[in-house]
Amino acid sequence: MNELLRYFQRELPAINEFLDTEANQLNGLVKDVAKHIIGSGGKRIRPILTLLFARAQGYTGTDYHAIACSLELLHSATLLHDDFLDDAELRRGKAASHLVFGRTETILAGDALLALANEMGARYGKARLSWLLARGIMETAVGEIEEIEFSKNPSLDRDRYMEIIIGKTAKLIECACRCGAALAGATSEQEDAAGAFGLNLGIAFQLVDDALDYASPTSETGKPEGGDLKEGKVTLPLILLMEEDATLDRESLLRGLKEGSLSESECHTILTRVREGRFSEKTRDEAAAYVEKAKACLDGLAPGEPVVVLKQAADFVLTRTK
Amino acid sequence: MNELLRYFQRELPAINEFLDTEANQLNGLVKDVAKHIIGSGGKRIRPILTLLFARAQGYTGTDYHAIACSLELLHSATLLHDDFLDDAELRRGKAASHLVFGRTETILAGDALLALANEMGARYGKARLSWLLARGIMETAVGEIEEIEFSKNPSLDRDRYMEIIIGKTAKLIECACRCGAALAGATSEQEDAAGAFGLNLGIAFQLVDDALDYASPTSETGKPEGGDLKEGKVTLPLILLMEEDATLDRESLLRGLKEGSLSESECHTILTRVREGRFSEKTRDEAAAYVEKAKACLDGLAPGEPVVVLKQAADFVLTRTK
Repeated sequence: MNELLRYFQRELPAINEFLDTEANQLNGLVKDVAKHIIGSGGKRIRPILTLLFARAQGYTGTDYHAIACSLELLHSATLLHDDFLDDAELRRGKAASHLVFGRTETILAGDALLALANEMGARYGKARLSWLLARGIMETAVGEIEEIEFSKNPSLDRDRYMEIIIGKTAKLIECACRCGAALAGATSEQEDAAGAFGLNLGIAFQLVDDALDYASPTSETGKPEGGDLKEGKVTLPLILLMEEDATLDRESLLRGLKEGSLSESECHTILTRVREGRFSEKTRDEAAAYVEKAKACLDGLAPGEPVVVLKQAADFVLTRTK
Repeated sequence: MNELLRYFQRELPAINEFLDTEANQLNGLVKDVAKHIIGSGGKRIRPILTLLFARAQGYTGTDYHAIACSLELLHSATLLHDDFLDDAELRRGKAASHLVFGRTETILAGDALLALANEMGARYGKARLSWLLARGIMETAVGEIEEIEFSKNPSLDRDRYMEIIIGKTAKLIECACRCGAALAGATSEQEDAAGAFGLNLGIAFQLVDDALDYASPTSETGKPEGGDLKEGKVTLPLILLMEEDATLDRESLLRGLKEGSLSESECHTILTRVREGRFSEKTRDEAAAYVEKAKACLDGLAPGEPVVVLKQAADFVLTRTK
């Protein structure tokens, strides 16, 4: 992982500085919210992926920060609205923005970051970049809506779950990779390969996130253990448990998830059985298959640093513990 | 006004059908919110302006609905978030969306409509259209933020007021006019003239809106009389009153607006003095000057139906009573 680590160390300062400069130009009412969410320890996976695919496709320029960072700002915008609508208390271990700054500031900061991200992508005067961003914004909005709809009417339907994680997470990562290729003027086949890498990596990323939710203590992820279960979210570890353990009462579980009425002891039972059945690990196994699919999408690229780093990034998605 | 009326009667059915078709493709959770706001009697001024400038600049095609309607959807998206953040009860005389459908559905519908509007503009594969929309979205977001900031710390500063109405209203109308010119492949000078028309018309439009707030009974505008005053919004009729009437206690008024603590009798006094001093009519007089500026921007256009209708539209902005 040395190359990956070095790449992040080398590129992150300029990315963070760019994000900071853009956030500082926002209006006073929303600037602090934007800086709070941007500064709250995001991994910057999306901008790094944009840069890596631009480099992998032969882009040698230095004008990549606006498009790369637009993906990070889109992601930040969705977190602001999500956390408000979920009544979330924590984001990456810190108090959620709406609790620190208020609902008006948080909703408007989400709107402003989305607008800024979109505008940053449009600066290039490249219709393809604007189209990709527009699609990415639309798909992410739809993914978020479908997730909330699913939580209002949860099921143990694995296809529905996959649709939702693709919409809420994988499509934006696909978009990040496509934008890098498009910046480099890649052919549509090359851009599609970049997109397929991103889509598969994004699915793996969310699967690992959902696995971690059942596996790690708060201190590492910044989220309470079993938080998804307590929030009524159906994710793969729970679906796997229900598929394999016929002794659990599915209807009662779904009702409890829908109504938010699962007791502490019911949650404890489920968390224990997920642990005993190793369903968090089995979710990671499914993620591993998507990581392999993602890596296969890199076959057409010329060997070099970007491909080495992209492969290590794919592996890191799988091995991360927070 | 016959030509204006005929133009709207001829073009609105297809515009409304397009809006309806797009809204129907949204996810179930937000579809009804979108249809509610779209169907709540908007004047469709923005799409008609886009079409008129496209035609005025020689566009003869039929593929104008996506870009024209994108402006209407952007406007609808801002109304959804605004009404929620303002705790508004009414919109165009109907119950505000968040009261009918709930906060989650309303916020997400705003996000979805914004995303959809942006995507509709990107469908053309024209970088200029995407840039104009991106700027319009950004400026409208900033305008909304500045308006809320102003309401948290109101002043009787006329320049600040003008900045705010430009940001929250005029910039999007400018954008609508520019998009029409850009669709027609206008030169940058021609697009600038279209933009100047829209900017001046947008200022006039908002001035008349603010004048109507002090002038009409609820039944015509769908808003309570003096609603802006009761909501703590500083608009031009109030600024004019304070500029001309030295007997009123400005500091106490500003404190009352800021804290939302104006009594019924204080509001009544102000409404009466605005009426007696004809400050609503004087606000309209200022609007009339902007309408004249707008009409002057049409000088470079070839004579024909679009110019006739644009002039009548400019006059209508001034004479409307709701």
